Amino acid sequence: MKTNIYFDNACTSYPKPTSVPEAMANYITSLGSNINRGCYDVAYKTEELVFETRELLKDLFNGEDSRNVVFTKNVTESLNFIIKGLLKPGDHVLVSSMEHNAVMRPLVQLSENNITFDRIPCHEDGSMDTSAIIPLIRPNTKAIIMLHASNVCGTLLPIKDVGQLCSKYKLLFILDCAQTAGVFDIDMVDMNIDALCFTGHKSLMGPQGIGGFILKSHMINKLNPLISGGTGSISHTEFIPEFMPDRFEAGTPNIPGILGLNASLKWIRDKGISNIKEHELSLTGHMLEELIQLESSTDKIKLIGRRNIESRVGVISITTTDDELSNIAYELEQEYGILTRVGLHCAPSAHKTLNTFPTGTIRFSFGPDNTHDEVDFVAKSLKTLLTR
Amino acid sequence: MKTNIYFDNACTSYPKPTSVPEAMANYITSLGSNINRGCYDVAYKTEELVFETRELLKDLFNGEDSRNVVFTKNVTESLNFIIKGLLKPGDHVLVSSMEHNAVMRPLVQLSENNITFDRIPCHEDGSMDTSAIIPLIRPNTKAIIMLHASNVCGTLLPIKDVGQLCSKYKLLFILDCAQTAGVFDIDMVDMNIDALCFTGHKSLMGPQGIGGFILKSHMINKLNPLISGGTGSISHTEFIPEFMPDRFEAGTPNIPGILGLNASLKWIRDKGISNIKEHELSLTGHMLEELIQLESSTDKIKLIGRRNIESRVGVISITTTDDELSNIAYELEQEYGILTRVGLHCAPSAHKTLNTFPTGTIRFSFGPDNTHDEVDFVAKSLKTLLTR
Repeated sequence: MKTNIYFDNACTSYPKPTSVPEAMANYITSLGSNINRGCYDVAYKTEELVFETRELLKDLFNGEDSRNVVFTKNVTESLNFIIKGLLKPGDHVLVSSMEHNAVMRPLVQLSENNITFDRIPCHEDGSMDTSAIIPLIRPNTKAIIMLHASNVCGTLLPIKDVGQLCSKYKLLFILDCAQTAGVFDIDMVDMNIDALCFTGHKSLMGPQGIGGFILKSHMINKLNPLISGGTGSISHTEFIPEFMPDRFEAGTPNIPGILGLNASLKWIRDKGISNIKEHELSLTGHMLEELIQLESSTDKIKLIGRRNIESRVGVISITTTDDELSNIAYELEQEYGILTRVGLHCAPSAHKTLNTFPTGTIRFSFGPDNTHDEVDFVAKSLKTLLTR
Repeated sequence: MKTNIYFDNACTSYPKPTSVPEAMANYITSLGSNINRGCYDVAYKTEELVFETRELLKDLFNGEDSRNVVFTKNVTESLNFIIKGLLKPGDHVLVSSMEHNAVMRPLVQLSENNITFDRIPCHEDGSMDTSAIIPLIRPNTKAIIMLHASNVCGTLLPIKDVGQLCSKYKLLFILDCAQTAGVFDIDMVDMNIDALCFTGHKSLMGPQGIGGFILKSHMINKLNPLISGGTGSISHTEFIPEFMPDRFEAGTPNIPGILGLNASLKWIRDKGISNIKEHELSLTGHMLEELIQLESSTDKIKLIGRRNIESRVGVISITTTDDELSNIAYELEQEYGILTRVGLHCAPSAHKTLNTFPTGTIRFSFGPDNTHDEVDFVAKSLKTLLTR
């Protein structure tokens, strides 16, 4: 058994593939140059690696064109780029009732500008019926903005069906795949996704500090760039370039972060995302069984969300009815070296849907490095804490 | 002599202190956790290092409060945060005629929203008389936004005088110190700077992907956050936190980048910025002498900007009257391993001021690792190329 058991992969994945810090340190030590701004050989080598990273992401999500892959620092910035770049006074959008504050805070902020939204009500297990969407569509509804899977309880939303509905009702479909990229199949064409927002440091296994978004080409001119500045291109003009990705990428990019993500994307490609998914769902199923068994032996614990691995990712939440949640999480770490995350997970709307607001939950989330032995140990430790 | 001579430090500094990639790789390998989001010990350790980095920056620039240090991915994002967060329809601002597109493109973009600007005319050597500012001030002038030193020709602008003028005329003073931070003294109190925008990867010697801004406290509520989302704080609400730095820091931060910057800031502190400045200006003076001598022996070269080290940083531009500039830069690299930067350096307004638009210049820029031997070699190589 390792000293620590890390069950907080929904916050950030750990450990990262060893190739990630190696690629970053190697770049800083050996290449070091900027891109689009130098004329020398090492600058070209770096540009090739950055281009390759865009290609890897385009291929992973079946994007139209690697030039439409834009790097940001995190999925929050990506969602702000799309939401604030797209919406104008008078516009209305729909979101699920399971959203993270990365979507909700920008929308609430924009409500000052006569931009409105409605929440598509989800069930108490976090799932959604697409039939709930239709009555909410208004003449001025421009888009549906939605996460792929809840970061609180792991429930997947029916994004393929939502994509079809968006196509039928001529709505734009903007997906936040922070909790699924690199584990679940996401196909921008098949799922009719107009803009996909990702982060590098969760299940894409890269470092913190790098994320991005991918656009269908028809979106490019619909978005007013949230950030503008020097791009190393058409430097004779003070106007923003029209071409991609420069239209949305101003200033020196996070090259160490991009090259770290390059390494992790290759690691995922080599491992195979279906194998990663199978492993994480196997751990999830195991943990769910243990928790359901514990639930039947003590009323001090309640499992939140779906009770089997159907339509869910490797994220599980529980509440405890006895001790305060944060004490249990604290004792799990202090006594057993088990790292979890407790609270509201930046998603008050989701917790209201799940009836866990404002207390929150303890969240367990799995990554490629976790094992069934760890699940056994966590379940046993939790049982000891709750039944002592 | 090294294989390559790197004279492109104004683009990004190279080599970085070895502690920079070490700190980043060590974090990813050994700590790995997120901040503000985990309850476990390693998360607290990371938070302490991030806090320490804010303290180092506050101390470097004499900021009011380390909580007012906000991290972004680069100085372009920082300037967008300030410019787009501050300005409202009807506002007018002043900029120098030497600005980078990191200032000009956001302002030109905002001109669609009835936000206007005027350029304070600078002299052909890039210098500015503050007396040129006063006739441009209008009743609706809100701020002066200005770089500390030109990224094209290295001329310093008189920011202390501008700060005093801003105080007298009740204008906000927003400084872009991309080319000076870590080498020149910048004091937010003494220079009356209301918002200071920095980047980590130039003379602060950190990695690409990390930058930030520092606010005086009275600025906090004047800025509408450009990016909003989850902060790991007050997660029960969908409103943006009022407190700092959370008000402006949404989403998972670039922790490897922050810790890389932490290492480089300590490296600078240990070395002493006055020593770094003395070294870089010594190289600059040496290079200027060589170029002036070369200028007297051939009419194929022209030195741009100030001709001595008074009021300038370690950035030098030349034009050549014979071959195309880019060919000279290319040959400097291919034949002599000398890395420079050629073109417009994302600063068309500066090149118009310097009368080098639209051809641009070849730029040489120095860092702590450069030597006088390298300056000799570069001067000799340039002479060979221009007089063959």
